[in-house]
Amino acid sequence: MLDIANVRADFPILAREVNGKPLVYLDNGASAQKPQVVIDAITTAYSHEYANVHRGLHYLSNVATEKYENVRGTIARFLNVADENQIVLNTGTTEGINMVAYSWAMPRFEPGDEIVLSVMEHHANIVPWHFLRERQGAILKWVDVDSNGALDAQTVIDAIGPRTKLIAISHLSNVLGTKVDVKAICAAAHARGVAVLVDGSQAAVHMPVDVDDLGCDFYAITGHKLYGPSGSGAIFVRKDRLAEMRAFMGGGDMIREVSKDAVSYNDPPMKFEAGTPGIVQTIGLGAALEYMMSLGMDNIAAYEAGLCSYAQTRLGGLNWLQVQGNAPDKAAIFSFTLDGAGHAHDISTILDKKGVAVRAGHHCAQPLMEHLGVTATCRASFGLYNTEAEVDALVDALELCHDLFA
Amino acid sequence: MLDIANVRADFPILAREVNGKPLVYLDNGASAQKPQVVIDAITTAYSHEYANVHRGLHYLSNVATEKYENVRGTIARFLNVADENQIVLNTGTTEGINMVAYSWAMPRFEPGDEIVLSVMEHHANIVPWHFLRERQGAILKWVDVDSNGALDAQTVIDAIGPRTKLIAISHLSNVLGTKVDVKAICAAAHARGVAVLVDGSQAAVHMPVDVDDLGCDFYAITGHKLYGPSGSGAIFVRKDRLAEMRAFMGGGDMIREVSKDAVSYNDPPMKFEAGTPGIVQTIGLGAALEYMMSLGMDNIAAYEAGLCSYAQTRLGGLNWLQVQGNAPDKAAIFSFTLDGAGHAHDISTILDKKGVAVRAGHHCAQPLMEHLGVTATCRASFGLYNTEAEVDALVDALELCHDLFA
Repeated sequence: MLDIANVRADFPILAREVNGKPLVYLDNGASAQKPQVVIDAITTAYSHEYANVHRGLHYLSNVATEKYENVRGTIARFLNVADENQIVLNTGTTEGINMVAYSWAMPRFEPGDEIVLSVMEHHANIVPWHFLRERQGAILKWVDVDSNGALDAQTVIDAIGPRTKLIAISHLSNVLGTKVDVKAICAAAHARGVAVLVDGSQAAVHMPVDVDDLGCDFYAITGHKLYGPSGSGAIFVRKDRLAEMRAFMGGGDMIREVSKDAVSYNDPPMKFEAGTPGIVQTIGLGAALEYMMSLGMDNIAAYEAGLCSYAQTRLGGLNWLQVQGNAPDKAAIFSFTLDGAGHAHDISTILDKKGVAVRAGHHCAQPLMEHLGVTATCRASFGLYNTEAEVDALVDALELCHDLFA
Repeated sequence: MLDIANVRADFPILAREVNGKPLVYLDNGASAQKPQVVIDAITTAYSHEYANVHRGLHYLSNVATEKYENVRGTIARFLNVADENQIVLNTGTTEGINMVAYSWAMPRFEPGDEIVLSVMEHHANIVPWHFLRERQGAILKWVDVDSNGALDAQTVIDAIGPRTKLIAISHLSNVLGTKVDVKAICAAAHARGVAVLVDGSQAAVHMPVDVDDLGCDFYAITGHKLYGPSGSGAIFVRKDRLAEMRAFMGGGDMIREVSKDAVSYNDPPMKFEAGTPGIVQTIGLGAALEYMMSLGMDNIAAYEAGLCSYAQTRLGGLNWLQVQGNAPDKAAIFSFTLDGAGHAHDISTILDKKGVAVRAGHHCAQPLMEHLGVTATCRASFGLYNTEAEVDALVDALELCHDLFA
């Protein structure tokens, strides 16, 4: 089990106040805070061990290259991927999914070919597919969630048609906390020759992810939601899909040879890593994943399950509060609106006065907002350092909102 | 004039030793070291002021957003761009040039349309244009440098034909140190309706850049070469070109509205900034540019001109050393080979034993290597913190190489 006091002490920002109140940071779904080991990894890299990677032969370049390249193995371990050459390092999920859209999908989609999506996808897993629709006539097939915000894997599977080439699906909804049975979807999709891309932005921070077991073709993660630096990330791409992909961005490291008349490309994953990479961010991401693994992903999931259950009880006791999403086994992400109360933005502003940081808006999930019949919600999203006392602080602040707007 | 002792004290890594010798860091062309103000900006951001930007209404998100967005103005000031909405924030030059290739060039190039390039371009300013050649029949027209490594602007202008749509040119060669008269090229190109993209990766660190005066359409910079964090950067795109560009990557922030059937896009520059950006790297880049501007770009250029002249004299005195590139008014970047001596990689390894960090290889400029008739060179590239004593250390180490290989 997590020693939560020790965990909290690892995150310097949690000691600060906001508006004269202790910070209650419940905006983890947007971005998580960073433990000191991550900050130290960055500081050490820049202060003592910095140089460009890969192309140098001098000491600092070798040190930086080794630390940077080691992270590929760390990510592979974190996702349970046997061959680390199936890990493409990048700046986060948005780049990862766009790479799949540009490099794998665009060259092989014919007009009328279909992509199956759930209505709760994040825009990062929608807009790249709209590009395929706008530019080359792909068809987006949408699957709804049920009234609890749960997604039945079978409805996704049933949406597969003869023209379906890809299922692009979130492992865990950033708005509802809904977990998706990706494994069942992958099994059925592969039986029909359909590729599956999983947006793991939210899932990977809340639970153990076993890509080998899931059997997906693509699994995208983003470092800043994993207690790592902004601008870090990676995508798992199965070896056979890597072989099917053309280059995405062009530049250094991704080539084998360049002449005036021709270019030949490096082997994957380097083929998909153009230019000087986010060297130090990636090193920081490695430190973040090591940190989580040292706590134990099972321990983190168990701790957060308790927190989720406590929050469900406390929030469920507010009969003027509508929580969107009550799927069984959901993660500790709560989107809500208040009866006849102010706009979500106003609520979040009032909560902020009490030191409680939540997000308000469409959460980059406008199709889901439309499905829910709202334009915006407040969202409290928990991380491994949050506590039941912070749930209480949220509830207290919400009661104040209710009083103000009632 | 720079107070070089003070400047050096600003960079913590310069105090370290490598292989028992004081570090002589002459690999600035690959990536520059970071001053303490940049490291502190990063540490402060993560330790006290971190949250996701743009979509939050709580205190930390507002602080982070303000610090992040302020950098757009800093970059505009650094490049002398009046309207900061012409600055697209990104991860560096590679992403910037690829964005232009995908978003501006690909939708408007017909088979047979031409791109004019110099032979000394970096692969980041070559491979994206090879994509256009491979995928849609664009023609790359190459312009050579003369025997001094100088590039006559008129030869570039003379290469413009009726099918030329773009000139893609480096402002300063990463191998030869050659400066290019971009202003003359832009004037002639625009008179013929041809767009000009300038790769400013190397120029922007060595001299004042005045984009307004240059008159280019696109100007790409990369933070890690500007004493800023890895994974930071920006590209200036002139307003009318921004209006011509379709979206590059899809995700958060770059949309106005997303539904199941449609997507509409945000105004530039946001339209081209998808997903959670490199928040903290960008804040660090702002600190780096403020640092350089506080020293004064004219002062930096003047100091480095003295260093360049000293290095030219000292290296010129080694009659067994061939320096590639002796263009007038070149920057302090020296690529060289040794008479009958070991491979560039061996030389760099020996220099490293003396604490002197240089790069060896093709420097992501294989067409130039072919033009020069070599496969690799050693490159000593200087920055604002280097000294004449470090030139001497380089020369001493080279003399040792010469003795060993003679």
